[in-house]
Amino acid sequence: MKPVNVGLLGLGTVGAGTVNLLANNAKEIGRRAGRVVRITHAAVQNLDKPRECPTDGITLTTDPFAVVNDPDIDVVLELIGGEDDAYKLVMAAIEQGKHVVTANKHLIALHGNEIFAAADKHDVVVTFEAAVAGGIPIIKAIREGLAANHIEWLAGIINGTGNFILSQMKFEGADFAEALAEAQALGYAEADPTFDVDGIDAAHKLAILGSIAFGIPLSFDRIYTQGIRGIHADDIAYAEEMGYRIKHLGIARRNDGSIELRVHPTLVSEKALLANVEGEKNAVMVYGDAVGPTVYYGAGAGAGPTASAVVADLIDTVRMMSVDPTGRVPHLAFQPDQITDTPILGNEGFFCGHYFRVQVADEPGVMSRITGLLAQHEISIEAILQKDPETAGDDALIIIVTKPVIEGQVMKFFDSLDDLPETRPGLVHMRVAQFED
Amino acid sequence: MKPVNVGLLGLGTVGAGTVNLLANNAKEIGRRAGRVVRITHAAVQNLDKPRECPTDGITLTTDPFAVVNDPDIDVVLELIGGEDDAYKLVMAAIEQGKHVVTANKHLIALHGNEIFAAADKHDVVVTFEAAVAGGIPIIKAIREGLAANHIEWLAGIINGTGNFILSQMKFEGADFAEALAEAQALGYAEADPTFDVDGIDAAHKLAILGSIAFGIPLSFDRIYTQGIRGIHADDIAYAEEMGYRIKHLGIARRNDGSIELRVHPTLVSEKALLANVEGEKNAVMVYGDAVGPTVYYGAGAGAGPTASAVVADLIDTVRMMSVDPTGRVPHLAFQPDQITDTPILGNEGFFCGHYFRVQVADEPGVMSRITGLLAQHEISIEAILQKDPETAGDDALIIIVTKPVIEGQVMKFFDSLDDLPETRPGLVHMRVAQFED
Repeated sequence: MKPVNVGLLGLGTVGAGTVNLLANNAKEIGRRAGRVVRITHAAVQNLDKPRECPTDGITLTTDPFAVVNDPDIDVVLELIGGEDDAYKLVMAAIEQGKHVVTANKHLIALHGNEIFAAADKHDVVVTFEAAVAGGIPIIKAIREGLAANHIEWLAGIINGTGNFILSQMKFEGADFAEALAEAQALGYAEADPTFDVDGIDAAHKLAILGSIAFGIPLSFDRIYTQGIRGIHADDIAYAEEMGYRIKHLGIARRNDGSIELRVHPTLVSEKALLANVEGEKNAVMVYGDAVGPTVYYGAGAGAGPTASAVVADLIDTVRMMSVDPTGRVPHLAFQPDQITDTPILGNEGFFCGHYFRVQVADEPGVMSRITGLLAQHEISIEAILQKDPETAGDDALIIIVTKPVIEGQVMKFFDSLDDLPETRPGLVHMRVAQFED
Repeated sequence: MKPVNVGLLGLGTVGAGTVNLLANNAKEIGRRAGRVVRITHAAVQNLDKPRECPTDGITLTTDPFAVVNDPDIDVVLELIGGEDDAYKLVMAAIEQGKHVVTANKHLIALHGNEIFAAADKHDVVVTFEAAVAGGIPIIKAIREGLAANHIEWLAGIINGTGNFILSQMKFEGADFAEALAEAQALGYAEADPTFDVDGIDAAHKLAILGSIAFGIPLSFDRIYTQGIRGIHADDIAYAEEMGYRIKHLGIARRNDGSIELRVHPTLVSEKALLANVEGEKNAVMVYGDAVGPTVYYGAGAGAGPTASAVVADLIDTVRMMSVDPTGRVPHLAFQPDQITDTPILGNEGFFCGHYFRVQVADEPGVMSRITGLLAQHEISIEAILQKDPETAGDDALIIIVTKPVIEGQVMKFFDSLDDLPETRPGLVHMRVAQFED
C-alpha cells in the first residue's frame, strides 16, 4: 500500500520526539498500522540549528506554508504551538484537504469551533489527543470508550507544572516561589510561568474536555479560572491536618440546565485517588452514568508522552484514510500476519522479590541457618520479621522479603530450607513486585 | 441513514443492562453516533421469565441461531457467556458476515485465535472491550491510544471479586472464608467461586491483554496462574508491617526474547497506585517506552459498566460500517449539528465545600462572632482549626472547612466577615470537592 506522507510543522522538543518515536518504533508501529508512515517534510525556524533527532530523508524548509501546500503531503502535524501562525497554517492545511494532527491546546481551546467547522466542510479530520494530558489517551477514552455514557462530571490534574509545584510545597515545605524556581530549574516550568501557574493552560485543556464530555462548543472564555500563586505552604499544612490535600483541578460538571467549568485549587480528601497523584503527573477522573467513576493517569507533558499521543492520532488518521478492511484496528492490535509466537517464560525464570513465611522450631541458631541458606543461594534480604504468636506454640514464625532474584534460585533455596530439621511444613510464598508510578 | 439492527444473545444481567443503557441514553448516543442503533431480536432461555429491562419492540426467541441467521440483523451481541454455545454462535454469526460484540473473556481467551482468523476471512470485526476490566476502556487504550509505543509491561487488578476479598481481609481482618462469604452475599462472587478465586478469570483477561500488548497469539494455557485461596489474614498484616499490600495481579512483561504472563498474589509497596485500589474496582497499569507509566481505573464488573463497554464497541462497529465521513468519530465527540450551547454556570452558583483562613484580633468572642455569621448565612462547618503562629503576632488564625453550600452564600458571608472589626485583610479562600472513587 502507498506510504502516507506526513509534513511536520515545528522540530522542537515535541517535533523531534515525534520523529524519534516514529524511527525507533517503526517496526512495532508498522506491525500495528499495516502501513508505512513517513515524515517527508519539516518546517523549522532555522535550518542550521542542531536537531534533537535525525533528519535523513526529511526535506527541511523555513516556510511552513510550503509544507502545508505541498500536494504530496497527506497529513500535517502542527507542533509549532502558539496561536496565530498555528491557526493560519491549520486552516490552510484543511483548505488543501489535508488531515491535521495537533498538540496545540491553546489553538484548539480558542479556535477549535472554527477549525472543526472548516474540517467538516472540507471532509478532513483534525485530531488533538496530545493537547490534553500528554500521553494519556483521555480524548479517546471520553470520545469513544465512554461514548455510551451520559457524562456527569470530570475532574482532573491537567497541568503537570502546577502539580509538581504543589507536590514540592507539600513534601519539602517549600513556599510557592522556591517550588516554582525548582520547577524552572528542572525544565518543568517556562521562564514565564504565567500559563501554568495562573491556570490558563489548565483552562485550555478543560475547555476541550468539557466540550467532548457534554457536547457544548469550546468555551474557554467562560471558564472560571484561578491559579496557584496564592497558595501558601501553611495552607497545605493546615489542609493536611484536617485530612485534605490541595490539588489544582479542572472540573466540568452538569447542573440542571447548565454546566460548570472551573479551574481552581481544590481541597480533596487525602484518601481520594486524585489526592495521591504527585509530581508532574496528570490524572483525569471521569464519571459516566453507566460506568461510574473511571480514572486515567500518566505523564502530562514531555517529548515522549506527547509524541506517543501525536503518533497515535497519526495512526488513527491513517486507518481512517483506508476505506478497505485492512485499514481497520486489528483484533489483536497487530496485523494478523504480524502476530509472533514469542516464547512464554516459565516461572523459574521470573525475576522479582519474594515473600515467604515459614514456621520453625524456636531453637538457638535457626535464624542464622536460614539466613545462611539465603546467602548460599545468593539471595539478598529486603526485610525480615520474627513473630511468636500463640498459634505457633513453642515455634516461631519467620517472615522474609527478599530483593529481586531469579525464581529458580528461590525454588532451590526452598528445597534446602525444607531439609532443615527445624522447618515445619506449610511454607507460604508470594511474589513482590515494584511498579514505577 | 438506515438504522443498524442488532441481535442480542442473552438477556441476563449484562444483556438487560445493555438494553436499558441503549434506551436510557438513546438521545445522547444518537448525538454522538449520528445513527440509530436498535436491538430488534433477543434470544433468551425462557420466554416467560421476568426481565430486568423493557422488551417492547424486541422479538424474543429461545433459538439463538435464529437470531444469528436472521438476514435483517447487522450486528450480533454475544452476552450468554460460557464457552461451547458461545463459540458456535459467534462462529456462525461470522460466517453469516455479521459483526460481533462480545463480553466473553472465557471465549476470547480460549478461542480468540480461531475466531479472529474467521472474522478476518469473512471481513467482519469481533470486538471485546467488555471482556477485560468491565467499563474501563483498556483494550482501546492499549490497541489504539498507545499504538505508537513498544509496551514494556503491564500489571493489573483485573478480577474485582478477588480484590474485594483482599480488601475485606485487610480492612476487617477477616479470614479468606469469611471474606468470600461476604462477597457471595453481596453478589460479587458466584456460588462456585473457582474462576475468581483460583485466578482463572484473571488469566483469561491477562491472555487478552498480553496479546494486544505484545502481538502474540492468545496463550491462556501458558499463563502461570495462582489464586488467592492460600492467603491468610496474618500474611496481609505482616506484609503491611513491612510497608506492603497484597494484591492479586495479572502481569505481562517482555524479557529478552521471551514474555512473562503470570497471575498471582503480589506484594506491592503501600505507596504504589495499584496498592490503593480497593473493593471490587479494577485498575491496569501499562508501561510504554514513549509514554512511560499510565494507569486506567474503574469498575471491573456489573451491569452498567459492562454495558458501557458493550455499547461503546457497538458504536465503534457502527462507525466502521459507514464508509462515508459522517460515520467518523466527531471532532467534539458529538455530531456537529448536535453541539448545544448549554449555559455555563457562574461561580456564585457553584455548590461545594469551602476552605478559608482568616487572621483576626485574638479577642474574647471572636470565634463566636465568626461562627455566628456562618450560622446566619446557613453555612455548616465541617472542620475548624485555630492557630496562634508567631507570624500572626497577637492575632490568631482561624481556618474553617465548610460543608457544601452555594458559593453565593459564602461570598455574602465573606462580605459580612470583612465588616467585623476583628478581621484583618488577606482572607485566603479555596474550594473543597469530593470525588467518589
